[in-house]
Amino acid sequence: MMDDDSKDVETAIMGPYQEKSKAFPSLKNKTPRVLKAFLSLDTRVYYGLALLTLLYMFYVGSLTSPIIVFIFVLCTGCMIFTAYLAQWVLAKDEGPLEMSEISDAIRDGAEGFFRTQYGAISKMAVVLAFVIFSIYLFRKTTPEQEAAGLEKSTVASITVLSFLLGALCSGIAGYVGMWVSVRANVRVSSAARRSAREALQVALRAGGFSALIVVGMTVLGVAVLFCSFYVYLNVDAPGSVRITELPLLLVGYGFGASFVALFAQLGGGIYTKAADVGADLVGKVEQGIPEDDPRNPAVIADLVGDNVGDCAARGADLFESIAAEVISAMILGGSMAKRCKLEDASGFILFPLVVHSFDLVVSAIGIASIKSTRDPSSKSVVEDPMVILQKGYSITLGLAVLAFTGSTRWLLYTEQAPSAWIHFALCGLVGIITAYSFVWISQYYTDYKYEPVRTLALASTSGHGTNIIAGVGLGLEATAMPVLVISVSILSAYWLGRTSGLQDNQGLPTGGLFGTAVATMGMLSTAGYVLTMDMFGPIADNAGGIVEMRNQPESVREITDLLDAVGNTTKATTKGFAIGSAALASFLLFSAYMDEVSSFSGSLFTEVDIAIPEVFVGGLLGSMLIFLFSAWACTAVGRTAQEVVNEVRRQFAERPGIMTYQVKPDYARCVSIVASASLREMIKPGALAVISPIVLGIVFRIIGSYTDQPLLGAKAVAGMLMFATVSGILMALFFNTAGGAWDNAKKYIESGALGGKGSDAHKAAVTGDTVGDPFKDTAGPSLHVLIKMLATITLVMAPLFLES
Amino acid sequence: MMDDDSKDVETAIMGPYQEKSKAFPSLKNKTPRVLKAFLSLDTRVYYGLALLTLLYMFYVGSLTSPIIVFIFVLCTGCMIFTAYLAQWVLAKDEGPLEMSEISDAIRDGAEGFFRTQYGAISKMAVVLAFVIFSIYLFRKTTPEQEAAGLEKSTVASITVLSFLLGALCSGIAGYVGMWVSVRANVRVSSAARRSAREALQVALRAGGFSALIVVGMTVLGVAVLFCSFYVYLNVDAPGSVRITELPLLLVGYGFGASFVALFAQLGGGIYTKAADVGADLVGKVEQGIPEDDPRNPAVIADLVGDNVGDCAARGADLFESIAAEVISAMILGGSMAKRCKLEDASGFILFPLVVHSFDLVVSAIGIASIKSTRDPSSKSVVEDPMVILQKGYSITLGLAVLAFTGSTRWLLYTEQAPSAWIHFALCGLVGIITAYSFVWISQYYTDYKYEPVRTLALASTSGHGTNIIAGVGLGLEATAMPVLVISVSILSAYWLGRTSGLQDNQGLPTGGLFGTAVATMGMLSTAGYVLTMDMFGPIADNAGGIVEMRNQPESVREITDLLDAVGNTTKATTKGFAIGSAALASFLLFSAYMDEVSSFSGSLFTEVDIAIPEVFVGGLLGSMLIFLFSAWACTAVGRTAQEVVNEVRRQFAERPGIMTYQVKPDYARCVSIVASASLREMIKPGALAVISPIVLGIVFRIIGSYTDQPLLGAKAVAGMLMFATVSGILMALFFNTAGGAWDNAKKYIESGALGGKGSDAHKAAVTGDTVGDPFKDTAGPSLHVLIKMLATITLVMAPLFLES
Repeated sequence: MMDDDSKDVETAIMGPYQEKSKAFPSLKNKTPRVLKAFLSLDTRVYYGLALLTLLYMFYVGSLTSPIIVFIFVLCTGCMIFTAYLAQWVLAKDEGPLEMSEISDAIRDGAEGFFRTQYGAISKMAVVLAFVIFSIYLFRKTTPEQEAAGLEKSTVASITVLSFLLGALCSGIAGYVGMWVSVRANVRVSSAARRSAREALQVALRAGGFSALIVVGMTVLGVAVLFCSFYVYLNVDAPGSVRITELPLLLVGYGFGASFVALFAQLGGGIYTKAADVGADLVGKVEQGIPEDDPRNPAVIADLVGDNVGDCAARGADLFESIAAEVISAMILGGSMAKRCKLEDASGFILFPLVVHSFDLVVSAIGIASIKSTRDPSSKSVVEDPMVILQKGYSITLGLAVLAFTGSTRWLLYTEQAPSAWIHFALCGLVGIITAYSFVWISQYYTDYKYEPVRTLALASTSGHGTNIIAGVGLGLEATAMPVLVISVSILSAYWLGRTSGLQDNQGLPTGGLFGTAVATMGMLSTAGYVLTMDMFGPIADNAGGIVEMRNQPESVREITDLLDAVGNTTKATTKGFAIGSAALASFLLFSAYMDEVSSFSGSLFTEVDIAIPEVFVGGLLGSMLIFLFSAWACTAVGRTAQEVVNEVRRQFAERPGIMTYQVKPDYARCVSIVASASLREMIKPGALAVISPIVLGIVFRIIGSYTDQPLLGAKAVAGMLMFATVSGILMALFFNTAGGAWDNAKKYIESGALGGKGSDAHKAAVTGDTVGDPFKDTAGPSLHVLIKMLATITLVMAPLFLES
Repeated sequence: MMDDDSKDVETAIMGPYQEKSKAFPSLKNKTPRVLKAFLSLDTRVYYGLALLTLLYMFYVGSLTSPIIVFIFVLCTGCMIFTAYLAQWVLAKDEGPLEMSEISDAIRDGAEGFFRTQYGAISKMAVVLAFVIFSIYLFRKTTPEQEAAGLEKSTVASITVLSFLLGALCSGIAGYVGMWVSVRANVRVSSAARRSAREALQVALRAGGFSALIVVGMTVLGVAVLFCSFYVYLNVDAPGSVRITELPLLLVGYGFGASFVALFAQLGGGIYTKAADVGADLVGKVEQGIPEDDPRNPAVIADLVGDNVGDCAARGADLFESIAAEVISAMILGGSMAKRCKLEDASGFILFPLVVHSFDLVVSAIGIASIKSTRDPSSKSVVEDPMVILQKGYSITLGLAVLAFTGSTRWLLYTEQAPSAWIHFALCGLVGIITAYSFVWISQYYTDYKYEPVRTLALASTSGHGTNIIAGVGLGLEATAMPVLVISVSILSAYWLGRTSGLQDNQGLPTGGLFGTAVATMGMLSTAGYVLTMDMFGPIADNAGGIVEMRNQPESVREITDLLDAVGNTTKATTKGFAIGSAALASFLLFSAYMDEVSSFSGSLFTEVDIAIPEVFVGGLLGSMLIFLFSAWACTAVGRTAQEVVNEVRRQFAERPGIMTYQVKPDYARCVSIVASASLREMIKPGALAVISPIVLGIVFRIIGSYTDQPLLGAKAVAGMLMFATVSGILMALFFNTAGGAWDNAKKYIESGALGGKGSDAHKAAVTGDTVGDPFKDTAGPSLHVLIKMLATITLVMAPLFLES
């Protein structure tokens, strides 16, 4: 897959300039040898490997359950469709050489950073794998596992294997996102020279390719692991592990995914925003040159950032979201089936996988529904790309509702509670409505069609200070509606589940938690299409950058600007979607944690009582963790941006010819500064997030053993998890909304309102936009990942918090 | 006490100018008639009333407990000392007419706003009193109250009476704070013309006057209520109310105090910062004139703001802090004494009152220890006022430790657990150390002697955007250390209390919560002196403003600038102190709430299990409440500041002579704009805070009655309370620290670093300071009050959340 063209990077970015810079780091030789060897194989070997994998999948699948076989059929179909999409996109032309030169430079920068970044992450992952292995080797197994004759070393190996596979798949998800975007960008630019519709289609299909790969890989990864363990452990044979215990063995996969996603999002987020802020502060504010102007030395770094920050990181983010949620829903489904003593638990356990298989199918249909030719009935001269995208979304949504209802009837129907499936179908609907409300609310607070952003723009007229105050106020206020929606969703899904008729052996209703799990699944049942729209954004943004840098005609720029604006909106709404699903899933993830602690400790763990001082302190520290993490994420961007500012200022000062196009700026130096700074800066917040819950759990476990409170460690961690989740949701909403609103307030002014470009209000709005950058693209998205990483790390590390 | 001079306000502020403005609102005729009648009485009538009150106090006190008599003796002594302080300050000269003119204008503006504001607040309080009365009339009494034959109407009247008294005392505390500061400011300016030491002493004694009144009034109010109820209800007579039940009847007092404090802080905070931001944005940033320049039309409004925002509001804030904490510690002391079946519970119940009586004495000694003559051993030419203040603080602190230890031996010694008092003395020490650490941490993050602010100042060199990002990062990061300190304090105080040897009748240790209560008392055991240092700040600030406006010689300005700078530091540290005590008290306040719910419901309420979806949702909504409240507080300032900006710009544009001193700006119009806007803006966030917990409790009580969960309403409110407290502590820390750091980063640059005044870095730093203003003086302090208001409102409204 690696594009190993021999063109010299430097020539590529030099373009028409004469002077040569030696500073651009040659990132190509950093490919690890194993990878190189693998990449140099004949294509027939790849096909052979894929075929073998396929055979293995269907073999273990057929031994496990017909449901799994069905899932594999759907997924394989969709993977073939993604191959078609990729081929279709790559078959498009790259336009004139001057455009593809830029694109090559961006690609090399992005791939170089990706390799270094993931190299660092994989080293950390390997260390962590050893840690997990030794933890599981020296702790007790659950009574059920003991009864099933599972050895400690088996459980340890299974967990570590899941962890590594999760990490690997997350890496691949990120890589695929970036791989396609650095190739699609120039093809979109080129298509924009022909028609808006074609450019839109190229960007959408490229986004769809990586979105479907991400979703498909989650489903396939979990499903393959599930049936491998099923077959290997000889599940449901007498005296062996029961199927309801199996999902608990998958937690490592979720943790692996979120571990990689956390660092991917942090590193990528810092990269993209440090470059952006640095470029803007000197370029736009001090020198008054437009965005993506070729004279700005940080412009290539900025364009690289879009790919590593938005594409790669968002891919990893959504991958881990879905993985974490699928696994916890499977755990809850299993434990509920066990409590209700259902004869066949596999329907409840495999439900999340089926939902996401259908997600793939309906999203693929949605993507395919967008044609390359204009709707003949449309009468307007310029089509609004948002309308086209939303049409595809409506198709996807409608099909998703049907598929979801069908799945509930198929898998969640039991004779014990004949109407339960209707309740769960309604839970799914609650989830879908929640998703829709989140998208709508984030649009209301960040789109300049509405009041809030206009008020913010107005505040810019009285200065930088009032702009910031108004933006902070707006962001804080924008947390209210989503929280209300989430509260209503959690309670109504819980209530629907509770009244579903499913009862445990004491006759108590038990379906409540599973109801919230189904709502979460409902929310994510169109994840494929939503992720497609999200990936569309940075591709369009990059295409716009290439067009701008190569001074293409005004008409081409108009098309890419239009696509870029739509991309901003879809990016903001996807964030709403991501945080909404995180919020809804949070309650699910604690419950999975509590289930797991109960299993391990052998004593019931059903309450987290914050009236216990240690639990309250755990909560206090959990909320503080969110603040500290956000602080470090923001300051990392600020610090790195300052380095960029100094470098760009230096170049402008030392080479006055840059401004008159006579001298070529040294793009490569900026790329290299940003890359090394963001790798350095991602470590501190990332380590904080990984280490804090472990330290807290161990410290309180020790305190507990001295004060005779056996579950204290696990309880304090639960307190931390819950408070961190609540604070994390609120802070992420604040960061995302404030950042998006500042961005669009600036765009509103640039559209000519309140004095337009160059006015004092515009300057104030640019300050707001600068502040919003790390908020919305570094701290906010990192918090999404952090919330789920905390949940999965506590799931995996739970044995550490219990006295053995 | 009202200064009813007949001088025309307009003449006063017109000073040497010729032109006259008609726009200054005549605020004087707004004094309510009852108040007017009261104020026009002969002074002998006042003395008579005071004597009668004193006689009543000692009469009921002697019927209650010798401890109470002791408290009254200490308090009366200190009140006489405050009278001496007031007389001493007022005997100082007001300086030349041109200075007192300004001071008169400030006083009229402040008193006018105060009257309108408190008029509005008192109307709301009366409405609320009716609501509380009817709630208590239609709900059940506690089983103990029923057994004692307490009628519903009696409990209702007692609660309403406490509420109104609390509200009244809070109003008086605020008024006294402002009353003295608007009189002391010009006396400090005048003294500054003679010597720095004298100016410092005047400001300090004026601050000390109101600080001691505030603390004294808390103690006296609670003590008088306590023994009035004791005598009236014939406590401890067989079959009557038991003394351990009595503190529960005082909750109304705490709620009254925090209700008024919330609106006082909101209104005052919005006033002071809207005026400040508005004045700075046009004056400093656009026109480049210095702070407090007489040409700035918003300058008088700004100086008025210092008095109504910092003095009045902080007085009300600290008043309610101490009241809420004293009452909840009394409740906990009572319930612990009951559980341990102690023979004489009065020591445990009255302990907090004794601690604060000693607080008055040691603070008075600390204030008196600062002499008007220079320390002869000092060799430096210019004395650092901070050193002088800290010397007084050390004396106070040392004496407080002695007094505290003595009190624990006297009151907390029981034969059942002979070494308990030592444990509690150590708890007190934990509190004192916590207070000290908080002060130190807030100094570290906000003083430019240290790294964080210097880094922030450095970030200003690359622009407005990086300054804001760095400031936000700094503020978020600064939450970590205080939270760690608080966590350690809560746990160690709890542990010390738990191991004190006090046991309930089942042999379980019970002193844990009381341990945290004692630590809170320890923290607040020097509240008098700390509040004195805090009140010192705005008085010095105002004095500086007057000096600047009247173009006094450079040497005088240098003295007031020095005092002002010290005032900024003490203001920041007091905020650390206030939030630290709120954090430590928070755990206490929930426990009091849970005790109360147990009493009312008759069923044990000892857990707040966040694994219950409704409780979790309560928590989510509680955290959201903090965000929404902060949002509204910030935007209120932003919006009002924009009005000021527009007005100031208009005046500069319409009267170009202002800049050349030829035309007098219309100060009065700015005062009136800010006053009416802040009254309007304080309603929304205030109402949100008061109404949310009530609505939540009732809604979940109804849900609970349908889903058969009897305590659901109370539990959801507990969830809200705890999450709101945690989020509130963190947000308040963030706002206070970020605001203080921005302020001092600007001061650091103004001191000549990084380009000094007028440089680009300075402009960026001014933006940061502007953003920080509403953070540190509106949102942050309002959150302190909000946290405690939530705790007291839930205490009072608890019956509403339970099925009757």
